[in-house]
Amino acid sequence: MAAEELRAVVEALRLVDHHVHGAATGELDRAGFDDGLTESAWPAPEGTTHLDSQLGFAVRRWCAPVLDLPPHTEPDAYLARRKELGWTEVTRRLLTAAGVGCFLVETGYRAQQILTPEQMAQTCGATAAEVVRLETVAEDVAADGVDAAGFADRFAAVLDERARRAVGLKSVIAYRHGLDFDPDPPGPGQVRAAAGRWLRRRQTGEERLADPVLLRHLLWTGVEHGLPLQFHVGFGDADLTLYRNDPSLMTGFLRRVQDRRVPVMLLHCYPYHRTAGYLAHVFPHVYCDVGLAVTYTGARSRAVVAETLEVAPFGKLLFSSDGWGPAELHHLGAVLWRRAVTAVLGEWVEWGEWSGADAVRVAQMVGSGNARRVYGLEEPP
Amino acid sequence: MAAEELRAVVEALRLVDHHVHGAATGELDRAGFDDGLTESAWPAPEGTTHLDSQLGFAVRRWCAPVLDLPPHTEPDAYLARRKELGWTEVTRRLLTAAGVGCFLVETGYRAQQILTPEQMAQTCGATAAEVVRLETVAEDVAADGVDAAGFADRFAAVLDERARRAVGLKSVIAYRHGLDFDPDPPGPGQVRAAAGRWLRRRQTGEERLADPVLLRHLLWTGVEHGLPLQFHVGFGDADLTLYRNDPSLMTGFLRRVQDRRVPVMLLHCYPYHRTAGYLAHVFPHVYCDVGLAVTYTGARSRAVVAETLEVAPFGKLLFSSDGWGPAELHHLGAVLWRRAVTAVLGEWVEWGEWSGADAVRVAQMVGSGNARRVYGLEEPP
Amino acid sequence: MAAEELRAVVEALRLVDHHVHGAATGELDRAGFDDGLTESAWPAPEGTTHLDSQLGFAVRRWCAPVLDLPPHTEPDAYLARRKELGWTEVTRRLLTAAGVGCFLVETGYRAQQILTPEQMAQTCGATAAEVVRLETVAEDVAADGVDAAGFADRFAAVLDERARRAVGLKSVIAYRHGLDFDPDPPGPGQVRAAAGRWLRRRQTGEERLADPVLLRHLLWTGVEHGLPLQFHVGFGDADLTLYRNDPSLMTGFLRRVQDRRVPVMLLHCYPYHRTAGYLAHVFPHVYCDVGLAVTYTGARSRAVVAETLEVAPFGKLLFSSDGWGPAELHHLGAVLWRRAVTAVLGEWVEWGEWSGADAVRVAQMVGSGNARRVYGLEEPP
Repeated sequence: MAAEELRAVVEALRLVDHHVHGAATGELDRAGFDDGLTESAWPAPEGTTHLDSQLGFAVRRWCAPVLDLPPHTEPDAYLARRKELGWTEVTRRLLTAAGVGCFLVETGYRAQQILTPEQMAQTCGATAAEVVRLETVAEDVAADGVDAAGFADRFAAVLDERARRAVGLKSVIAYRHGLDFDPDPPGPGQVRAAAGRWLRRRQTGEERLADPVLLRHLLWTGVEHGLPLQFHVGFGDADLTLYRNDPSLMTGFLRRVQDRRVPVMLLHCYPYHRTAGYLAHVFPHVYCDVGLAVTYTGARSRAVVAETLEVAPFGKLLFSSDGWGPAELHHLGAVLWRRAVTAVLGEWVEWGEWSGADAVRVAQMVGSGNARRVYGLEEPP
Repeated sequence: MAAEELRAVVEALRLVDHHVHGAATGELDRAGFDDGLTESAWPAPEGTTHLDSQLGFAVRRWCAPVLDLPPHTEPDAYLARRKELGWTEVTRRLLTAAGVGCFLVETGYRAQQILTPEQMAQTCGATAAEVVRLETVAEDVAADGVDAAGFADRFAAVLDERARRAVGLKSVIAYRHGLDFDPDPPGPGQVRAAAGRWLRRRQTGEERLADPVLLRHLLWTGVEHGLPLQFHVGFGDADLTLYRNDPSLMTGFLRRVQDRRVPVMLLHCYPYHRTAGYLAHVFPHVYCDVGLAVTYTGARSRAVVAETLEVAPFGKLLFSSDGWGPAELHHLGAVLWRRAVTAVLGEWVEWGEWSGADAVRVAQMVGSGNARRVYGLEEPP
Repeated sequence: MAAEELRAVVEALRLVDHHVHGAATGELDRAGFDDGLTESAWPAPEGTTHLDSQLGFAVRRWCAPVLDLPPHTEPDAYLARRKELGWTEVTRRLLTAAGVGCFLVETGYRAQQILTPEQMAQTCGATAAEVVRLETVAEDVAADGVDAAGFADRFAAVLDERARRAVGLKSVIAYRHGLDFDPDPPGPGQVRAAAGRWLRRRQTGEERLADPVLLRHLLWTGVEHGLPLQFHVGFGDADLTLYRNDPSLMTGFLRRVQDRRVPVMLLHCYPYHRTAGYLAHVFPHVYCDVGLAVTYTGARSRAVVAETLEVAPFGKLLFSSDGWGPAELHHLGAVLWRRAVTAVLGEWVEWGEWSGADAVRVAQMVGSGNARRVYGLEEPP
């Protein structure tokens, strides 16, 4: 009885996806589909496919029925049907069935290939707000022309402007350097010198911002700005070095920003999600999710979700899909999270450890309430 | 049948809690209660409570009935009943129902706010022995007045005196420095110089001993003393930096002390409990528990306990609660451990992997026998 | 129905054990038996035994019936029966019942105490091929007499000769140094100097090759050779330092060898198997297994196997036992892996997450197909 009620509540819950990107525009061929369903930058080795994976199996299991196909449909048949329906209809169906009430859309990665926040919202009757990626703003500032002496002021001004309607900021220092960065803010002279070096390197074609001094300067400018600050942590593509993504490497930084009243949102965190839970436990300003890891671990996502529900306080956990590209990712983020939460919390109720009412309440907090509180979102009507 | 027998044996088992502190004296108000049930040093952020956590839910589930309340009672009603009964009765009930036969009480942390080992024993008809915290002894030596040249001798003498009736020593180098300490003992000149620096800093109000040279000197003095040496490892409060709490960072030290016949007890270890299990597997003098992590992971404690029962030999695992303050912590340490062990070992018996007799034997070893052997405790009558 | 079919397929599957050593020759007494069933180099402390462990319990549960004994037979009775049957009969029974179709035998560790690849194959009607340990070849080159200037050429020549009929190479740099090695190949001058230092040390009795420059030179010579390159990673004996066995410490090396078309096989990986799965996910040339950890975690092996089936693509996972010595290890590697895969994949089919056909296909890939493809083994008749 409690199990059925929990299932119904979780099923009906309008989620806040607090870290997501736009769904892809345009049709996907097999290569594009395979490429969209892996964090690898390369084709699978001969004799294998990226779709022989938990994510690939989850697409065939859970997305196929949304396209009127039987569960476990083979990839080629799935893609044929996808093409037959057309990408706008497929995206509409998958996003709508995800049941997300509000998307917080991070717009800093290949924004021209994907739907805008407004389009995401319109596609499925949700609302949307923006999360601004610090490094992209800096790269835009450089592309628009600035000198070393003017970089810091110009960056701060453009960030203020871009963030005016945003609800959060995002750092990818985990990719560009690692979380083992110097916890103190760099001085103005260091920033100017680092900007000079980077602006010169840009003239030789290296546009990507990876200078550790500048990355830290962006972070601290973000902290000054005051919006919740999201960090990529852990599982992601081959650009990162995993052992440098342990979020406890950021402990010194977390201590230094504690009095700034800026919520720090640790994203994904796999396989360091227990460490992230510890940080969320001891530091009042730290929050976490297992976003991308839920999608990519498919049938195992309930184990991963359960591990986040150990020492992390329930008021500090959020839901995200981190979907980018194929709308299957946005869909599965929500579907797998719902299934995981229903199974995990339901089991604790069944064992007599939790009350059914608490299970319902925690599912609502993690799926929506915590994000609404931290980002200051309006309650849905 | 085997499952029922296992449950009955584990239920009746008089545990040895080999690392615990005293229960709090005095009544708890809501702020004190919330503060006592988290490792965070700060209030929960607005809109959240520390009690929305596995530990908070476990208190409401398992402690409420001990106070004649229904399971899952809300915090305010729980506290009202707690006050009605009075803290001495509540503590008596919770400690007695924990079924601990022997407490090894670490007395080095805020001892004036909690019950003494003798009081712990009297409260629930158990026995008690003391575990002496090295850093507290050193801080007491400094407070009593000593100069740099006399520090080492004085510390050794006071430690000998304090440890005369103790059964173990404890180090919090994990908090004060990290487990990545230099594995070699410091020389006498280094100790004298470090003592001088610290004693001077004390005059400016910094009483806490955090000098790495002195911390190592305390360790090696403890090793010379010869009692089992407990180390805090992993999950704990915000004083520590988690990535520096991986116990394999101590591997060099473990190698150097191997011939001293001093058992090294790794406490808590979460989320590095598998690494602790590896160390207990390969080194004859290394033992481990998941003490505090059992209490704090509540409904998930069976998963955590299961993970310790992988490569750690069963003769090297112990039980502890690490309770300090609210007697709920002492109670839950025991209740959750019993439930976890019953569920985990019972499942292996059910699957046909273990015999019922082995399950009973391992539960007895981990819950009591291993601690009795390592600490040289008398068998209960 | 799907569960039964999966069980039958997995039961009948002729495995490729892609990293194994020979079974012991000769009878085992109790000390030898205990010593063979632990990664510890020392006797268990007084009052305990290495056999009170998941591995010890698994031997009594799963190997006893192969010797016509009831499950859970006590160690002494087991050993008495083992002696009665004789080691050749015991080894024949245990290896045959393991159902391995092909052994890839690493011959570099105490080869004189164990069966040769040919003997392994003959004992149980399997095929066998060799995996050559780089460090052993280098130590043999030194033992045969070489000077510093000639070391590199001589090593390359002997490696070519030894590897002529081999299917893979193996590095134990994880033991001898750690995986935090300099990712670049050393220059010829550095190699000559390092060889000189090592050859001089050898004259004082230190035969073991642990020089970081030479270890890296061996690796890069192995990469040039072109066969799949196996790395010990994680759980093993006390020679290694666990925190230096995180395979993501090798990320720089993995990036540098990516264009060499050399498959890199990460072995065991516990407790870093999720990190290994991440590396197998993002890098096309990286593969992994949890070999030794399956054997040593016994009843918990299904949890460990499940954790590898998270982000690692199913075309990148392999089976190995890493058995060395008592044939119980070879047997249990296979038995526990079959039980784990049947339970884990079967549960996903039961939950409706996977199709039964996919479960069967993935079991065949991991148990045999992936190894046949990567090592270029002939299909069985």
